[in-house]
Amino acid sequence: MNNNIKLLENEAIDDLQLDNLYLIQKKSGFRFGVDAVLLSNFAKVKRSHRVVDLCSGTGIVPFLIYGKYKAKEIVGVEIQEDMVEMAGRSSRYNEVEEIIKFYQGDLKDIKFLNTLGKFDVLTVNPPYKLNNTGIINSEDKLAIARHEILCNLEDVIVASRKLLKDNGRMYMVHRPERLIDIFQLMRKHKIEPKRIQLVHPKVNKAPNIVLVEGQRDGGAYLKWEDPLYVHNEDGSYTKEINKIYGREL
Amino acid sequence: MNNNIKLLENEAIDDLQLDNLYLIQKKSGFRFGVDAVLLSNFAKVKRSHRVVDLCSGTGIVPFLIYGKYKAKEIVGVEIQEDMVEMAGRSSRYNEVEEIIKFYQGDLKDIKFLNTLGKFDVLTVNPPYKLNNTGIINSEDKLAIARHEILCNLEDVIVASRKLLKDNGRMYMVHRPERLIDIFQLMRKHKIEPKRIQLVHPKVNKAPNIVLVEGQRDGGAYLKWEDPLYVHNEDGSYTKEINKIYGREL
Repeated sequence: MNNNIKLLENEAIDDLQLDNLYLIQKKSGFRFGVDAVLLSNFAKVKRSHRVVDLCSGTGIVPFLIYGKYKAKEIVGVEIQEDMVEMAGRSSRYNEVEEIIKFYQGDLKDIKFLNTLGKFDVLTVNPPYKLNNTGIINSEDKLAIARHEILCNLEDVIVASRKLLKDNGRMYMVHRPERLIDIFQLMRKHKIEPKRIQLVHPKVNKAPNIVLVEGQRDGGAYLKWEDPLYVHNEDGSYTKEINKIYGREL
Repeated sequence: MNNNIKLLENEAIDDLQLDNLYLIQKKSGFRFGVDAVLLSNFAKVKRSHRVVDLCSGTGIVPFLIYGKYKAKEIVGVEIQEDMVEMAGRSSRYNEVEEIIKFYQGDLKDIKFLNTLGKFDVLTVNPPYKLNNTGIINSEDKLAIARHEILCNLEDVIVASRKLLKDNGRMYMVHRPERLIDIFQLMRKHKIEPKRIQLVHPKVNKAPNIVLVEGQRDGGAYLKWEDPLYVHNEDGSYTKEINKIYGREL
């Protein structure tokens, strides 16, 4: 790794426990969680693939995708300039700056999307809350990551269609409450939902995370994956989650 | 009960184990299963409600709804004349013919629907397989019950909108593979999906039954119920299923 990379105030370098990769994150602020880990596990990526990650934030998903699948090129797109700068430093710290590249841009900007080219695989962990919860500070990075302030679900899906090659695959992590919108908008923009997995906090609890795979111009057939449970009754992580986190016990 | 009711060849009277109710069914042919039991359990019905059950078949759902909730009037609609005749005999056998009535008719026939009036609650266990599986004998009652031969999902939803009062509730049991179509068509015809429950054969298996509640002209918010598991690892019924079947152990 490149030890010349400097950390700013309130930043830390965290070990991803995957292929000797590290990620720079704020000590307080938006830090990656189980969503990013589940999304990168759910995606199906080959070494030959060009991958793009929208709403990339710290860049966690590109690093996990690289660590798991060694895709030849991974592009992270993020609208917040300082996040892009931080993710770029993570890339240089890991000395993968020729493979994992971050670009600042607005996914609603077609000219910007055109500069990126076409991709085999797209991943996205979009803001999942409707922007209807009152006044939100548009400078608030946590709010921007969680609420549909700078882009909404339809913007994400329209951009995905634009960026995917014919029959390319989109992988999204979202909230089950939004599943009707997700299905409706994907179908509207001809990214057919092909595979779904629900994630439950515990066995007897309603799902609180949904993973959806769509295919650009794919035919209609939805495959349901076996469900995933995060915690055992005693609060410990399940065997499946430990496996996804690379903690084979 | 009325013991003057006669059985035809290949018919049996089965005890529903619920409020001393019985159902006439063919010994071989379409017999009710877990779908009907789960649907009547999922529905929310008051004594004051007028209820209609589409694709009513043997009439199992009306009898279960009556046994559980004592709705004041329950109408079963079925296209196959001999099924309607058999369900009517079940009604007379149980001496509830003033409450549970069966009508022969095609749910695509608006004039017929107009004769039925408006309902607080609608239940339906429609044919769930696409009619794209090759040549099917249109006289085959099992095929008609399972495949979209005489009506498809959109026909069912259009009829439901027609039959429901303002803000009335629709309860449907279907297959998770069709969930995109279900959501899309319900929204198209302004019966907003409000509540969903997935039913899994076992804890670690993908869901194979979905229960959906929709509200005529309802606002958009989807509530996820805790999942339901049918079998334990050893193949026995789960506590939840035994409870739904009225077998509190």
